[in-house]
Amino acid sequence: MMTKPAETRLPVLHWRTTPRSGDTRSVRKLIQASGVFSPEEIDVAEELVRERLDKGTASGYEFVFAETGESLAGSACYGRVPLTRASYDLDWIAVGPNQQRRGVGQQLLARVEDDLRARGGGNLYVETSSRPSYEAARRFYASAGYRECARFPDFYAPGDAKVVFLKRFP
Amino acid sequence: MMTKPAETRLPVLHWRTTPRSGDTRSVRKLIQASGVFSPEEIDVAEELVRERLDKGTASGYEFVFAETGESLAGSACYGRVPLTRASYDLDWIAVGPNQQRRGVGQQLLARVEDDLRARGGGNLYVETSSRPSYEAARRFYASAGYRECARFPDFYAPGDAKVVFLKRFP
Repeated sequence: MMTKPAETRLPVLHWRTTPRSGDTRSVRKLIQASGVFSPEEIDVAEELVRERLDKGTASGYEFVFAETGESLAGSACYGRVPLTRASYDLDWIAVGPNQQRRGVGQQLLARVEDDLRARGGGNLYVETSSRPSYEAARRFYASAGYRECARFPDFYAPGDAKVVFLKRFP
Repeated sequence: MMTKPAETRLPVLHWRTTPRSGDTRSVRKLIQASGVFSPEEIDVAEELVRERLDKGTASGYEFVFAETGESLAGSACYGRVPLTRASYDLDWIAVGPNQQRRGVGQQLLARVEDDLRARGGGNLYVETSSRPSYEAARRFYASAGYRECARFPDFYAPGDAKVVFLKRFP
């Protein structure tokens, strides 16, 4: 009897939420390798990890890391928006190229949502671009129950709108 | 012939755009005294001045200060939104209690807008609350040509929406 090829099996994932000093580098590598982020977005992502390492939870940034052995399979970053009681931004979800299409992104998102529920619920916002290269991202969030709640034409650049998705947790 | 009472004359304002180390304290005092910001908003405002003093223009925050003699009459803070080509957030405009209703706010806003035009134009966004206490702020922006472009129900707290105003500079 044949077994499935190894690459379609779900990897054994180990989860953690506390960033370590090596994560500035591993998050940069992961996000770069995921192939969907711009150079400026990569810099911002690394900066958020550094902020968290410098300031701890006072930075306002929370993380989920999914690891296979020593390597980072995926990561999510989110945080409460300052001045709000319970509105959160999902800053990114990134999955490494070898782990894509295996449900790692859904698992990362589910853990972020579980944490929001544990904090008493609230609004989770995701900002994406209207560009065709973000269509997979928009479908990912739509299929997870997020709906478009606002659109800002020409936000990122002429012809490139910001599309805001929202899911509410009662 | 009677002269106007002194307090209705427009004060002689001196303008600068480079923050000084004393501004963390003077901005906090100004914003506190203006009477329309919450304690958390006051902390955020002071933090943005500190960010700018620490990191310079790389912080992304730009300022306008209006002074009468040694004291701060008003201040505005704005900056380009990361990852955008030409979208700017107006973080605050604050005017001290002795200078209110004399056009200082309009002059601060005009200087921010002039700087945006000098940078080649773009979108200037202002985020306000739907609460009754922000009605004067919403009227201020509406009369300056800003129009509501998005509304996020229950953003700040249940029943307290975020209202986003936009003015575009070609």
